[in-house]
Amino acid sequence: MTDKQNAPANNGKKVGRAPKLDNGFYSQDIISVSQFTRENLEYIFGVAEEMRAIVKRVGSTDLLKGSVLACVFYEPSTRTSASFIAAMSRLGGTVIPITQGVQFSSVSKGESLPDTIRTLESYADIIVIRHPEMGSAQIAADYARKPIINGGDGVGEHPTQALLDLFTIEEELGRVDGLNVGMVGDLRYGRTVHSLARLLCLYDVQFNFVSPEILRLPLDVMNEIRNHDLPVSETYDVSEIISDVDVLYITRVQKERFADLSQYEEVRDLYVLTPELMEDAKEKMIVMHPLPRVGEISYAVDSDPRAAYFRQMENGMYLRMALLAAVLGKA
Amino acid sequence: MTDKQNAPANNGKKVGRAPKLDNGFYSQDIISVSQFTRENLEYIFGVAEEMRAIVKRVGSTDLLKGSVLACVFYEPSTRTSASFIAAMSRLGGTVIPITQGVQFSSVSKGESLPDTIRTLESYADIIVIRHPEMGSAQIAADYARKPIINGGDGVGEHPTQALLDLFTIEEELGRVDGLNVGMVGDLRYGRTVHSLARLLCLYDVQFNFVSPEILRLPLDVMNEIRNHDLPVSETYDVSEIISDVDVLYITRVQKERFADLSQYEEVRDLYVLTPELMEDAKEKMIVMHPLPRVGEISYAVDSDPRAAYFRQMENGMYLRMALLAAVLGKA
Amino acid sequence: MTDKQNAPANNGKKVGRAPKLDNGFYSQDIISVSQFTRENLEYIFGVAEEMRAIVKRVGSTDLLKGSVLACVFYEPSTRTSASFIAAMSRLGGTVIPITQGVQFSSVSKGESLPDTIRTLESYADIIVIRHPEMGSAQIAADYARKPIINGGDGVGEHPTQALLDLFTIEEELGRVDGLNVGMVGDLRYGRTVHSLARLLCLYDVQFNFVSPEILRLPLDVMNEIRNHDLPVSETYDVSEIISDVDVLYITRVQKERFADLSQYEEVRDLYVLTPELMEDAKEKMIVMHPLPRVGEISYAVDSDPRAAYFRQMENGMYLRMALLAAVLGKA
Repeated sequence: MTDKQNAPANNGKKVGRAPKLDNGFYSQDIISVSQFTRENLEYIFGVAEEMRAIVKRVGSTDLLKGSVLACVFYEPSTRTSASFIAAMSRLGGTVIPITQGVQFSSVSKGESLPDTIRTLESYADIIVIRHPEMGSAQIAADYARKPIINGGDGVGEHPTQALLDLFTIEEELGRVDGLNVGMVGDLRYGRTVHSLARLLCLYDVQFNFVSPEILRLPLDVMNEIRNHDLPVSETYDVSEIISDVDVLYITRVQKERFADLSQYEEVRDLYVLTPELMEDAKEKMIVMHPLPRVGEISYAVDSDPRAAYFRQMENGMYLRMALLAAVLGKA
Repeated sequence: MTDKQNAPANNGKKVGRAPKLDNGFYSQDIISVSQFTRENLEYIFGVAEEMRAIVKRVGSTDLLKGSVLACVFYEPSTRTSASFIAAMSRLGGTVIPITQGVQFSSVSKGESLPDTIRTLESYADIIVIRHPEMGSAQIAADYARKPIINGGDGVGEHPTQALLDLFTIEEELGRVDGLNVGMVGDLRYGRTVHSLARLLCLYDVQFNFVSPEILRLPLDVMNEIRNHDLPVSETYDVSEIISDVDVLYITRVQKERFADLSQYEEVRDLYVLTPELMEDAKEKMIVMHPLPRVGEISYAVDSDPRAAYFRQMENGMYLRMALLAAVLGKA
Repeated sequence: MTDKQNAPANNGKKVGRAPKLDNGFYSQDIISVSQFTRENLEYIFGVAEEMRAIVKRVGSTDLLKGSVLACVFYEPSTRTSASFIAAMSRLGGTVIPITQGVQFSSVSKGESLPDTIRTLESYADIIVIRHPEMGSAQIAADYARKPIINGGDGVGEHPTQALLDLFTIEEELGRVDGLNVGMVGDLRYGRTVHSLARLLCLYDVQFNFVSPEILRLPLDVMNEIRNHDLPVSETYDVSEIISDVDVLYITRVQKERFADLSQYEEVRDLYVLTPELMEDAKEKMIVMHPLPRVGEISYAVDSDPRAAYFRQMENGMYLRMALLAAVLGKA
């Protein structure tokens, strides 16, 4: 998989693992946050900043004129698909949107994922795939000759989300090293939390995890943090850490996770961010959220300049522009 | 909301009302026909004529190169979405189509309309929204920093339809003042009838309304016409007005509106336009319909040069090109 | 229909039949393989080769800049719609995708196909239609002023598939005359088999048909072959012809076709291509499949250089680029 353009099609026997981006992004698959070094991140964030400058100044560029992106979404994701479509459009390229879910695709006729991918790569130059099953993006990459970007594979990874989250932290606060990062809500099932925490292990940060007992961070992520000797705290109440954090990354606590609903009712208010709570926060800090939110951040917080979640959305477009350009060798 | 580019995000407290377009279209929301003056209409119709000339001559222009339109349709509308996509494409811009309905969007995860709009505006330069609930387009505009165009909000408004209807009248007949306008069919629930009637109140016209008793024009629209001292007649039978009208605007009488189906069967034929009826019409007049039709205009009328409904469709594209260009400051 | 740009709208009385392409492709409908002569095929394959050269060299061209294609798909077809979208994009044109099926379109409000087509042609320069009912593409063409391309009409035709199949044969083997063509699987209901067989009747080929008894080639196609005095054989077992054929065109044998499932179980393995079978095939031959496949070609065959089905997919894009450019007068 080191140089996809010349790789032969896989014959159904190999199970791959996306390699480190040691030689840059050109022609590489983007499957997992484990591929990135700090150098990779610095590079791609630099490109994303240039993309922002271009969009602010003239709206778009012709960098990827003539290139075609296939967006194949086996499950709906307005946000991620819209972001990639906007990114490719602002780079001058075009998009084949295949976003109607499994019922609208050859998958409904029983076609295998590798066949679908190999068909789409005969039309497109690069493919973004979102799929409800963990590992599906890697399977796509194993069979494809063209580069694959993982747009989220079930409870697996969502690397472009983690990249835009980290990009937002650096843009908003000017650095990552030395920060105190609070992560709140569903830390057990929250794919975005896991991926971002793993990326942050490349830096010198301090973690504060806030969740109900049954939604605590899984052991594997916790162990990865410990292996990096980074300081960690865990609590049940966001008010205990609000005054310490530079970054407050909030995710939703879903009612469905609780077998006993009275338990949910008991704790839910501990995970809702309000203007009152924000009074105790540092003057220079940011509130992040992968969105969509459903009540876990009060609307009244939106006007607080520290509320960074909509800027975070916008950064997603710049970051994806940077990735597309870098993978296609035009960054 | 007077200058959207610099407006802060609304914090969930204000309920707005789209202002008059006193200073032109640039950076304004297009929510309601009540925003327009005759000067606005003359201006935008002039731009629409230029758009037609461009399309006829070279197919498209690069006027909006680099601009991105998000089309978010919470209910299906082939016609309106296709028209906006074609309009943006022929202006050199690109479109993020979000047309899969509520089941395919963050809305299904419970996200609020304002959050969806604020996300999309971080990717796009302008947003068209179609939504089944009256007032939704205004809510979107209240929260957005980028311009919003109402693509139809339930029983509320559909301003771009009313504009293209009026544009068609002026294009086909050379003027609006002095015309006798017949409106036929479901005048009670017909959103397009209400909006067009309101726009026509800016002119010196005469109205002839033809509908079953239970589908008569609502009092508020009738009162607005009376406030302008414009002559009005109401009848049950299109044959009574066919020889008088310069414009015959037909809409569908839906079976579902009748509690008593025998009542429907009794009146249905009074609202079907046939070649025989057209024999009594003026030589220079036009038949309009917002489409789709289901039997209320006989196919045999299509070859009559006075049948303007397909030209009306085409005008929709030119009018929407004009609006997009004007709102984005490139007209 | 000879010059669509100037043709008046049909008034619901005429039932047409797509004419021979005697004067080339410009402004013509592409409805049936019966329209093509060898000269037409040579011409369009030559253009398709140029399209491939352009894509390989620079990715895209501006040949159709400013042109708009409406893709109206009344049934899902990831492959065909993605191929047309990619083709139009790589030609510099844009696409209005209407691919949400009948439930998402004015059809659900009861609109007739002619009205839908006449609406879309007021926005677009050319229309591709896919529809589950045989004859629907011709109906669309009868009413349209703009050119219509049949993207598959039920058990009727799928001419662009047949063209890309034949193009693949010529590209892979350098000629069509003199070839021995094996067709395997569901020959009774297989639309692609019928259309390709009809096109091959323009050449000097030999046919070998392999299918279960209940899925034998229909009489009308068989008679057309006989009228051309071309040699034909029919068998139940692909192993009987594998060593003779230059082209092996495989389609799926669907379980649902069999009233008696035990019958299906008995024959299914006779229609699965394996590496073992391929050992008996000529060194220079090709395996084709319209895709999607579900088991009828073993994945282990994919790495065989004679497996041409993914190259066949790619050829579909070049062939459709050629058709779009030719019909719009820019080839």
